Order: sequence, then structure tokens, then C-alpha cells
Amino acid sequence: MIIVLKRDATQEVIDHVVEKIKSTGLAVHISKGKERTIIGAIGDETLLSQISLEALPGVENVMPILKPYKLVSREFSKEGTVIDLQGVCIGDTAIQVIAGPCSVESKDSLIDCAKKVQAAGASILRGGAFKPRTSPYDFQGLGVEGLKLLAEAKKATGLPIISELMDPRDTEVICEYVDIIQIGARNMQNFRLLTEVGKAKKPVLLKRGLSATIKEFLMSAEYIAAQGNGNIILCERGIRTFETATRNTLDLSAVPVLKEETHLPIFIDPSHAVGRWNLVAPLAKAAIAVGADGLMIEVHPDPENALCDGAQSLKPSKFAILMEEMKKVAISVGRTL
Amino acid sequence: MIIVLKRDATQEVIDHVVEKIKSTGLAVHISKGKERTIIGAIGDETLLSQISLEALPGVENVMPILKPYKLVSREFSKEGTVIDLQGVCIGDTAIQVIAGPCSVESKDSLIDCAKKVQAAGASILRGGAFKPRTSPYDFQGLGVEGLKLLAEAKKATGLPIISELMDPRDTEVICEYVDIIQIGARNMQNFRLLTEVGKAKKPVLLKRGLSATIKEFLMSAEYIAAQGNGNIILCERGIRTFETATRNTLDLSAVPVLKEETHLPIFIDPSHAVGRWNLVAPLAKAAIAVGADGLMIEVHPDPENALCDGAQSLKPSKFAILMEEMKKVAISVGRTL
Amino acid sequence: MIIVLKRDATQEVIDHVVEKIKSTGLAVHISKGKERTIIGAIGDETLLSQISLEALPGVENVMPILKPYKLVSREFSKEGTVIDLQGVCIGDTAIQVIAGPCSVESKDSLIDCAKKVQAAGASILRGGAFKPRTSPYDFQGLGVEGLKLLAEAKKATGLPIISELMDPRDTEVICEYVDIIQIGARNMQNFRLLTEVGKAKKPVLLKRGLSATIKEFLMSAEYIAAQGNGNIILCERGIRTFETATRNTLDLSAVPVLKEETHLPIFIDPSHAVGRWNLVAPLAKAAIAVGADGLMIEVHPDPENALCDGAQSLKPSKFAILMEEMKKVAISVGRTL
Amino acid sequence: MIIVLKRDATQEVIDHVVEKIKSTGLAVHISKGKERTIIGAIGDETLLSQISLEALPGVENVMPILKPYKLVSREFSKEGTVIDLQGVCIGDTAIQVIAGPCSVESKDSLIDCAKKVQAAGASILRGGAFKPRTSPYDFQGLGVEGLKLLAEAKKATGLPIISELMDPRDTEVICEYVDIIQIGARNMQNFRLLTEVGKAKKPVLLKRGLSATIKEFLMSAEYIAAQGNGNIILCERGIRTFETATRNTLDLSAVPVLKEETHLPIFIDPSHAVGRWNLVAPLAKAAIAVGADGLMIEVHPDPENALCDGAQSLKPSKFAILMEEMKKVAISVGRTL
Repeated sequence: MIIVLKRDATQEVIDHVVEKIKSTGLAVHISKGKERTIIGAIGDETLLSQISLEALPGVENVMPILKPYKLVSREFSKEGTVIDLQGVCIGDTAIQVIAGPCSVESKDSLIDCAKKVQAAGASILRGGAFKPRTSPYDFQGLGVEGLKLLAEAKKATGLPIISELMDPRDTEVICEYVDIIQIGARNMQNFRLLTEVGKAKKPVLLKRGLSATIKEFLMSAEYIAAQGNGNIILCERGIRTFETATRNTLDLSAVPVLKEETHLPIFIDPSHAVGRWNLVAPLAKAAIAVGADGLMIEVHPDPENALCDGAQSLKPSKFAILMEEMKKVAISVGRTL
Repeated sequence: MIIVLKRDATQEVIDHVVEKIKSTGLAVHISKGKERTIIGAIGDETLLSQISLEALPGVENVMPILKPYKLVSREFSKEGTVIDLQGVCIGDTAIQVIAGPCSVESKDSLIDCAKKVQAAGASILRGGAFKPRTSPYDFQGLGVEGLKLLAEAKKATGLPIISELMDPRDTEVICEYVDIIQIGARNMQNFRLLTEVGKAKKPVLLKRGLSATIKEFLMSAEYIAAQGNGNIILCERGIRTFETATRNTLDLSAVPVLKEETHLPIFIDPSHAVGRWNLVAPLAKAAIAVGADGLMIEVHPDPENALCDGAQSLKPSKFAILMEEMKKVAISVGRTL
Repeated sequence: MIIVLKRDATQEVIDHVVEKIKSTGLAVHISKGKERTIIGAIGDETLLSQISLEALPGVENVMPILKPYKLVSREFSKEGTVIDLQGVCIGDTAIQVIAGPCSVESKDSLIDCAKKVQAAGASILRGGAFKPRTSPYDFQGLGVEGLKLLAEAKKATGLPIISELMDPRDTEVICEYVDIIQIGARNMQNFRLLTEVGKAKKPVLLKRGLSATIKEFLMSAEYIAAQGNGNIILCERGIRTFETATRNTLDLSAVPVLKEETHLPIFIDPSHAVGRWNLVAPLAKAAIAVGADGLMIEVHPDPENALCDGAQSLKPSKFAILMEEMKKVAISVGRTL
Repeated sequence: MIIVLKRDATQEVIDHVVEKIKSTGLAVHISKGKERTIIGAIGDETLLSQISLEALPGVENVMPILKPYKLVSREFSKEGTVIDLQGVCIGDTAIQVIAGPCSVESKDSLIDCAKKVQAAGASILRGGAFKPRTSPYDFQGLGVEGLKLLAEAKKATGLPIISELMDPRDTEVICEYVDIIQIGARNMQNFRLLTEVGKAKKPVLLKRGLSATIKEFLMSAEYIAAQGNGNIILCERGIRTFETATRNTLDLSAVPVLKEETHLPIFIDPSHAVGRWNLVAPLAKAAIAVGADGLMIEVHPDPENALCDGAQSLKPSKFAILMEEMKKVAISVGRTL
């Protein structure tokens, strides 16, 4: 930690800051420049959270040097994490595609969709049973009934399934049915939920919050890892900016930045980012070119009548064409799909 | 709802859109312009959520006309909501000030702080028992023990108390102790939590999410109101922007906008918005001038040693001076404090 | 234009709005819903700029239906614009790469760089002579001397050159030397400069402003086109968001959105967007996969000693490797490079 | 400047960075921590702009310690700058109000407006002669003819006048007529224009760019000051965020932050920030409470027929009421108006 003192900091001020730092067990290194005195706190920076350095008189600025995340950092593990889901390996050379409807609506429609996305090459089936909706008056999902339908679709196709968890009280029931627990963007800093899935024995796909920095995103992953669950997939799904031409702004730069910072696999959800089906294909291909380990794409057999997010859902036929196009891009960057 | 069709929309396309709208029970009004055909869907717009208008072929743009919130809207109640908290009236001419430490740390320090903020004129005591922290390695609050200390501080001073709820499983226990349940910014779209506090019989202070639009903020309030709990206080606490000179950007324009849109009282939390104690005073005064019904201000007897957010906490002596200054501004805009 | 009236709008209010609209020559279409009266203004919406519809009593909301840009819109020309620069065709199947140093520093270094980027496959040479710098104390470019050096590099290699114009007074001199005039992000809404380059007979590369919406971006292009110069290349170079891990957030979604909206070619500048050389390669490949018509990449023979933006400049050897990688991605999406 | 090296930085890497820093004339201070080596560059940080520290191998992060602005900084002058405009003192205890129409439209309407705002207590008259408009098809201002009308209004009322400069070629002519030159938000980083007004002998009102950080805002003021013109008024007018309920988000926190950082007076323009006349009054009062030195408010005798920004213009009668209200707030915070 670097502590920059104000220009007119007296010796008394300096001594007080030094004493405070030492009280946490860290060592101190003082550098007097022409205009400012700078104090370096050397050692485990997390110990400094016991004191409020910014609140000390004479302190102008406090700049952390070390990363606040440990377990999920690339420094912790040079090797990338590979999650083996009954043979579907996430984080390896092969790019995995999660596909399916926004919400589970009926058995027939779900199994129909599952078979079609599987035929096109998707390796994991998605479907929302518990749905976070902006309006209390919108369809909130089928709940446990939806999870049961997902299990039937899994039985029919063999595809592993992923579904979103919104409430810590549903952790146990969701673990009975799904292969990957999804934490949605709105719950990225629902710390109690993160703690619960950290205790669960299932892989977790953690979506980036709409206004979460990459650092905060990794801190939320650290919450899960700190409970002993290291099988975490990060998923960028668009951030909130001033631009309204797309629903959110897909931050593809996050992929190479995250590849530097963490050993966890990184997925991209272009459907939620753009909000319009005809923009999904170009961004899905860009996601592969930029280095993503997988994609999550909404597919619905009948988008016009979807109970949720029809505008961003691809028809199965369009999804099949996209899969072919993505395969070519994957090969061009040395991956498979 | 206004549906704008693409330039080359055929009669077949128009007929299909019209048929879809009519299938929901709404009436249709067609207007053919020189360049575009526009279809108006007349009636209850929420019925349209059963279909995906944007997914229909030939649709260029869908523009809602009516507000998506009902119960919390100014149209629903011209009169402003006043919440009577054992004589402390929120939403009335008198501006109410919530003050206290970020987190409850110890009995002595809390009661000391409570007495001092009361002496300065604060009418409600705050203190975090369950703390949402970005890092899993930071102090997470004293939990139920913290709630008990708040109850003791209430006993010692008579001040009603407010504390944050993070987990639906804690709803019952928090209701035992607090007078107002706080929902934090990171949980503004934790819809399960909103539903729980909607069922509770306590007033709720709902903080605006870091990247929530005013419309989304009101939709979250609507979640609470839809469960039967109309005693909701809205609290603006800074939004996330590109500017890093302050922790967040306090959106004071939200106050007059919300006053137009809703009958609920509106508070401002300048402490969390700016993140630095020396900026709290000018923004607190501005909050009163812009028309806020109350403030939430962090006060700590010993900011240097605060376990949380020391940099933004006022010392009790500075808080007392600020209260005097705020009183003058309140009077200048026809309010009291 | 759709004008939504307030709930309690009287007949007098309606009549006044109707009369105002008719005074501009447009026709009017009234639709009375259950809760709101809506007025459609039919005809050329630009005529409505003579009046302030939002200022009329009883008006709640004004929603434009038609696009405010004409000449640059896809509706104006279904065919994409192709700019032929002495055989280098921009906007065609072949992807063009502009490369070179941020600023022109010396003859030898520039010609060395030009030869190397040409050998690697770049088809246009960039180099700043007039440099917009945040600080008045930073290197401001060599000015006309820099333009002369660019001309020498062109002579030595045959590469067409591009350089930035900052001041309308330099338009004539820059036209003497360059093949493409660049308008920088900070000048995207410098309307006088846009008007000047609109009158010039040279192609213009217009960079998107840091906080410009896609609509505003196209309106700035319209300024140029309205003066008779339709040879415009749009260039996305990162927008300003809350994320600080990269210098700006590259908005690759803008490419497919712009492809829908306009017939102009679209380039991507990953170097300025990310600000770090090691992130340039993945984003350059993503730019091709998403459908960009070209790239602008900073290359410097000695980044450590660059007078400007060394951190984001690729060494020629790394650029050559990237070009090979980009070729593969180009082929995978049916383009060449 | 603090240079943080990567974890695995070798002695060779350290030596290379040290040598580079020393080559600029600065001294070096090395601190080896448990995980990272940190190098402090001691002396004039601006000298480091000759090299690209971020481009050096082994460098993880570069953190400036000193402010990049000198002449405009509070450290340069503890005393606040007061600009005396023929008796109208800007930056003193008295708050000054600039009022008038968005654009100059006709002699009668302008003089009528000038008299009315003067009667209400405004001390400076605004009016746009050169208008930056997003669309090339909108009214672009009367140009020099507009400046002449402003001069007539000044003659009729004695009010000093302010008008916007968009083009360096108009600097001379605008200096003939106006008392304060306005640089608009879109030109905040039009460095050539800043340099021109830096050479002019007139006070300058510099508006903050829509997406400019406070640091960049001050760097633009430094451009003007570096040319010898220290009579600069800073004006916050709303920044671009994700929120669309107001045209921009007025950043009132900028006022106390700027008061710490600079000795220049700070104005607020609530009209452009919010874009709706009925929100202007509460934000104008908040601006005074937060500590602004002045306000810029749009007033138009006939907003419905304004050629520009009618929706945000106050009628003179409403402006007069607001002035009375603002006086009370000014007194409550120890200022006059």
C-alpha cells in the first residue's frame, strides 16, 4: 500500500501514520520527495482493513499495490482451471456453447429446443426456472417445476444443464437438478448467495454485474472460492454505459484482461448484452476471436411467443448456421468447437 | 405502446402485428406516415408482456407510452406518503436525519455515538449489523449481536433504528429489532429480498442501485408495494459514472424527477456517494435545497479506527456543526429540521 | 414524431399542440387512448425543429420516429460506400490495415516503420503531425514538418497516408500532403472542423467521440456529407465507461449496429481503446470477426522511447505476427486481408 | 511517480527502469516488498513524459503522485481568483447569475429578455451567436449579426455579455463584442481553441465536457492559463451517464472537489444539465447550497417558439421567482445574490 501525504504534512502527521501502519504488523518505508512524503506499507495489505488510512489526518491518497483477490488470481495458479462436466471440459482448447431458452416454459418446447441445439453442436442446455424480472407483473418462471422439466430434457438428450439461483433458500433444490449453478448479473454482489454456492459442490457460472468493474467481478469470484468451491466460470454479459443502441455494451476487452488476471475460464453471453437477435451472430464470432472459452446463447423455437426475451432469441435454424460460422472462427484462432 | 414498423413493411407484416396485439385483448390504431407505418396498442400495456413484439418480423422499434409502475406512481396518489415512526414523521415538512456508524462495532461506542447524534438533532439511528463487503476478507458485521446492540442504543436514547437486511432468511430476526429495514444498493434488484420485505410489516428504506435508472428504482419499489407494504423510503446514494474523483456521482437531479413520478419520500445518503467526509457537508446542504425529505449520514466517534468506511464518517462534533448549517438551508426552502 | 400528452390534457391543450404542428406544414394524426392522448406528426420531422414541442403545455414526451440522418443512412444507399485510394479499396471485401506511429518523430524512424508495416501487409501509413494532448506540457507534434516527413515516407513506400487535422486553419496544408484526413475523437463534435473537411476533396476518417452515441456519431458524419464529401470512414476507438482496467471500452457492438444504419465503411482502432499493447492483438482479431472493414493499429520501432502512447504501440515484429493471425480470421469470415 | 514492477521482475529489469528514469534527470528510490519491487521517481514528473514507462518490460503499473496541473491548482494560489468585470465580481462572496436565451434570435426579443433578467437580478447576459448543433439541419445561430445584437442589448442595459466561441478564426471578432468568451462542452478539448483564448485578453468561461473527468477539466483550464490568461471560470453543466430521465447528470459533487483542487471560480449550468425547465429551479438552489460561485440559466420570453432548447428555458416570470428563492438559499450559506 502506498500512502501519499498532503504537501504540508508535519513530522507529527508522518509519525502518526507510521505508527498506525505498524500497529497492524506491517513494515514501513518512507520516501521524502520534493513535494510530497510517501509512505509504503510493506506486507499483507489485507491487514490494513482494520484501520481507515484515508481517515488519518494529512493523508491525501491511498493506493493499493497488491491485488485484493488471491485464490482466483493468475498468480495463485499459472495453469488455467479446467472444469470437467461428465466429459464436457470447460476451460480447455475446445470452446463450449451453452444454449437454450431464456425461461423454461413447457416440456415439449424445452425438449424440442434441447434436441435442436444439441444437433447444432451445443454441449450444455440452459433454461431459467427462477427468473429475475424488472417488473413484479412479469412472468417469474416455473420454479421447481421448471427444474424438473430441465431434468427431463437432460434425460432426453444427455446434455448437462445450467439454471439460475436467486435465493439462498433454493440452493439445495437447485443442486438436486442442475450441473452448473448460474448466478445472475443482478446478484453478482449478493454476498450471501455467493457464500451459499461457495459451499455447494456444483460448478458455478458467475455473471458480471451491469456496473461491476473487473476487480469487483473477481472479488465476487473470490467469495465463492473462499468457501472452497473453485469451479467457477466467469461470464461477461454486457455492462451499462450511456449507449442505448444496444441493451448493454458487451465488454470484449474484459476477456484478455481476465485471462491475465485469473486462471478461471471466461464465457461471453452476447444475447443479453445486445438484446437483439440479429446482433448476436457477429458478437458471438468476435467473442471466439478475442479468446473466450465458451458462449451462452439464447435459442427459442418460437421467439414471437417467448414469455421472456423473445427479441434476443435465435431460432434453432439460425443458431445452427451460427454454430457452423463459429467453428470456422474457432479454427482460425487455434481452438475447436 | 407504439410499434414502429420498418420502412418496407408489407400489408402481411402489418396484419400479423395487428393480430398479435389483438390476441392480448388490446385495441389497435394504425397510422400510415410517408415513410413508416405506426401501430398504437391501446389498453393495458402489461398484457403485452405475453408476446415479444420486438421479435415480430418487420418491427423496427417498440416504445412504451404508459409508466410500468402503478402503486408507487404519483398518478396513483397525488398526496405524498407520510410514514409515522412513533412520532417521527417521514415525508412531511420536517426533514429527518438518520445518523450513526457504518457498522455496529461495540456497545459503548454505539451508545456514545447515538447520544451524540441525538443531541445534534438526528431523529433516527443507523448501524450495520449485516455488512455487504466487496472482499470476503473484510469485516462482515456482528450479525444478530449487532441488532441487539442497536436495540440497546434505542433503549438508551429512544431513537428509532434502521439496519440493513441482506438475506431473506434474516427477515424475521431483523423485524424483531429494527424500525426501518434497509435494502442496500447492491440488493436493489434482489427480487426475492424485495418480496420478503414487501410481506413484512416494517417501513423499508430502499437504496438506489449503483447503475439503476430511476425507472428501475421505482420498479423495485413497486415489487415491495405489490406485496402490500407501501411504507417505502427511496434513497439516492450515488450512481456509477466515469468520474473517479468521488466514489460515486451523487445524482441530485433524481430528487425532483422522483418527486414528479412518485408519492414516496426521498432521502439522500451523501456519505456513501462521495466517500470522503470533507465532501459530505456541502452535498448534505445541497440535498436539502434540492428538495430531499431526509438524509442518511455516517457518523463515527473515532473514524481512524472504524472497521468500515472510516474515510467517509464525520466526527460527532463536525456532524453537530453540519446540523446547524442544514437547519438554515432547510428554513430557506420552507422546511424544518 | 409522436407527441404523448399528459394524463389530464384538456381539449384546449390538444388543440394548441395540433395547431403548432400544423404551422410547420406537417399533418396530424390524433389517437385517444384510455389514459393518454397521443398525437402523431406526419411528414418531414426536421421541420419541427422550428418549434419547441417539449415546451408546449401538456406535453409529456416527444418521440422521434424517423432517423435524423439522411445522406449517411443505409436507407439513402443500400450499397456500401467503397473509397478507392489509388487502388486501396476501403469498404470492399478486403480488410485494410492502417498502421504506423502515434506521432511522427523523425524521418529515419518513420520510414523504417513505414517499410516494416508495409512488409507485414499494412496498406495505409498513419502518423500524427498535429497532436491533441491532454496536457499543454506534452509533446504537441512536429506540425507541417511532420506532414513533410509523412510525404517522404509515402514516396519511399508508395503507401497512402493519413494524419489528423485539429484546426480549420490547417485544412489547406493538410490536404496538400495526406490521402485521408483524420478527425480525432475529441473533435467529433467540432462542427466547424467537420464543415471544413466536408468542403475538402479528401476522404475523411471520423473517430467516434469518447461519449458519443452512435446516433451522434452518424450526425457528425452527416455534417461532412451535407457539405458534399461522402468519402467518410467511421472509426470506433473505445468509449468512456466506469471500467478502468482498459483506457476505454471498445464497443464492438457498434460495428453491426452501424452496418444496419449506414452505408459507410467502419474501422476499429484497438490501440487507443485499450491503451496497452498486449491487449491489441485479441481485440484486433475480434474486430475482424465482428465485421469491421479495417483497422488502425499503432506500431512504433522503439515503444520505450516513443514521445506519445508508447504503452499501446506494437513493435514491428509483433505487428507482423498479428497480421498473419488476422489474415486467418479474415478468411474464416469470408474476407481477405 | 510510483512504478510498480511485475512479481517476477529480475534485477536486469529493475536496472533498466532505473536507468530510464535517471536519463530524464529524476532521482530514484527503490523499495523491495515481499511480493513486488516498487520504484519511486523523485522530482518533476512532467519530465517523464519523454519516455514511455508503461512500455518498459517488467512494468505492471505506473501511478502519478503529483497533480499534472500547476497554474490552476490550489497549491499555486491559496487565494481564490476574483474576476472583476466592470464591477461585477466573479469568485467573491456575491453569487453572480448569467441569464438569457440559448440563441440570439432578434433584437427586440433579446433586449426584452435582457431587461427582464436584469430586473430579476441577473448580472450578466448570455446569448448564443455561433451555435454548436448536433444536426447540420438545425439553426446554427446568427453569427456576427448575433454578436452585434448582444452589443445592443449591453448598451440598453449595461449588462456585461457572454457568448460562445466555436472556431479559432472567430476569436478576434468575438473579442470585439463580448465580455466573457464561452468555450462549450463539446470544445473542452479543442486544444487549438483553448490556446487561442489563452492568448486573448478576455475572461473565459470553460464548460466541462460531457465525459471529461475533473482532472481533464483542469488540464483544459491549464491550457488557457499556460498562454497567460488566468481569468478562467469553470462551469459544470452535466455529465453523460446511463441515466436518461434527465438530459445529463448534473455533478454537483464537482463543486467541492474543484474548490479543493483549484483557485478558479466555479459556475453551474442547470438548464443544459437537466434539459427540462421545471427541474431547473431545485437544481439551481442546490448549486448555491453546494458552494457554486455563480449560475448560468436559460431564460426565453417565449419558450414555445425558441429556435433552440425551448424545453429547458424559463419564462422571465418564473426566473424572477427563482431569483427570490435563490437569494434565501444564498443567505443561508453565508453568500449574497
